[in-house]
Amino acid sequence: MNIRIGYGIDYHQLVEGRDLFIGGIKIPHNKGALGHSDADVLLHAICDALLGAAALGDIGVHFPDTSNEFKDIDSKILLAKTKTLIEAEGYKVINIDSTLCLEAPKVKPYVPQMQETIANILGITAKEVSIKATTTEKMGFVGRKEGLVAHAVVLIWKFGN
Amino acid sequence: MNIRIGYGIDYHQLVEGRDLFIGGIKIPHNKGALGHSDADVLLHAICDALLGAAALGDIGVHFPDTSNEFKDIDSKILLAKTKTLIEAEGYKVINIDSTLCLEAPKVKPYVPQMQETIANILGITAKEVSIKATTTEKMGFVGRKEGLVAHAVVLIWKFGN
Amino acid sequence: MNIRIGYGIDYHQLVEGRDLFIGGIKIPHNKGALGHSDADVLLHAICDALLGAAALGDIGVHFPDTSNEFKDIDSKILLAKTKTLIEAEGYKVINIDSTLCLEAPKVKPYVPQMQETIANILGITAKEVSIKATTTEKMGFVGRKEGLVAHAVVLIWKFGN
Repeated sequence: MNIRIGYGIDYHQLVEGRDLFIGGIKIPHNKGALGHSDADVLLHAICDALLGAAALGDIGVHFPDTSNEFKDIDSKILLAKTKTLIEAEGYKVINIDSTLCLEAPKVKPYVPQMQETIANILGITAKEVSIKATTTEKMGFVGRKEGLVAHAVVLIWKFGN
Repeated sequence: MNIRIGYGIDYHQLVEGRDLFIGGIKIPHNKGALGHSDADVLLHAICDALLGAAALGDIGVHFPDTSNEFKDIDSKILLAKTKTLIEAEGYKVINIDSTLCLEAPKVKPYVPQMQETIANILGITAKEVSIKATTTEKMGFVGRKEGLVAHAVVLIWKFGN
Repeated sequence: MNIRIGYGIDYHQLVEGRDLFIGGIKIPHNKGALGHSDADVLLHAICDALLGAAALGDIGVHFPDTSNEFKDIDSKILLAKTKTLIEAEGYKVINIDSTLCLEAPKVKPYVPQMQETIANILGITAKEVSIKATTTEKMGFVGRKEGLVAHAVVLIWKFGN
């Protein structure tokens, strides 16, 4: 059958002196995510889920953090490149469901704008991009506000047998 | 295509002086899960997976832990409300697979009763509600018995294009 | 509908004096995964995802770590047994997407051989077995190199209503 599943998970440390980008949106906060690119944990998890569904490797294979090409890059560009990669294999996105695990800041007010941003890049509707958020109830490195994690699951499909 | 994927994850601290509810069942243990509601980690993960699959927000949006309405509430009621929400959009559940991550107690003996409980609420059969369990091999906050985590994935569908 | 989703997660400590098996491959490293079997975190996550998708319990139910039968067993045998279990219910694998979370060693060079190994056991092609890898950005027990985690998602299906 020509339907496939993918799952992505991404981690970033939260540190002072960096901007915080989540879901393609800059979110006011006293810390930002540390990384080679803009360190957008949600877009990275979605890229990895899409690449995984199409069995095209992972974000580290396509956008290595050792390459100057991707230094400080806007992860929206990586998501657009990921779309091109899966479309070259004939795949379309059915839907995405994602979960942000972070203690702070509150991201709920930004979710509609994140959905629109991601949907526009992927050529789907905001109803096909679900974004949820939870704390880890003060436990672990997320609970200590040392970092944040994103999970994403996707279904993709292509026409034919 | 009218099939959609969802994923939910939920976390609760384990503390003395609380009852432990998992999968709608009260389980004998020297600790219980801390939360605003009955803190049923498995039902919460399933609610979030279902809401995410239908792109209806998350459990915090629908059942905020700042509302007196949900104080100490039986999470089976939240699952029933979630069913109503996704059915209002025309969706039916295909299957649910879930995983409990906890060091103790052993939950295997309670799994069939949990499956029946969840299936009855959702109007599906117990074979459509898989519940697995694992430790984290003594690592992290789950390994130190400070808390527990549940993951759930779901497929839902509706008739039509 | 006769398509089903499954998700598996597995954890193992990394300790000196053990060989490291991931995805059916022995990987040179100064530590190995601790466990009753060969402790192959990736194969265990895939087994659990497949069993969960078919609602057949979990790896602990079928291959208990209290049984001498499974002491130091090659997890490729467990994956083959899992295939038999889901096929007995009429299910076939559509695709698998998996993610390894570990700080070291680098596993990318071994991914094609892992894909071939898993695909051969399951009777599918390597394009149907995606394997991704990420660090946890030095956070948590994975970041401290105390252990490793694998996630797997699967779709399975059977002919008929």
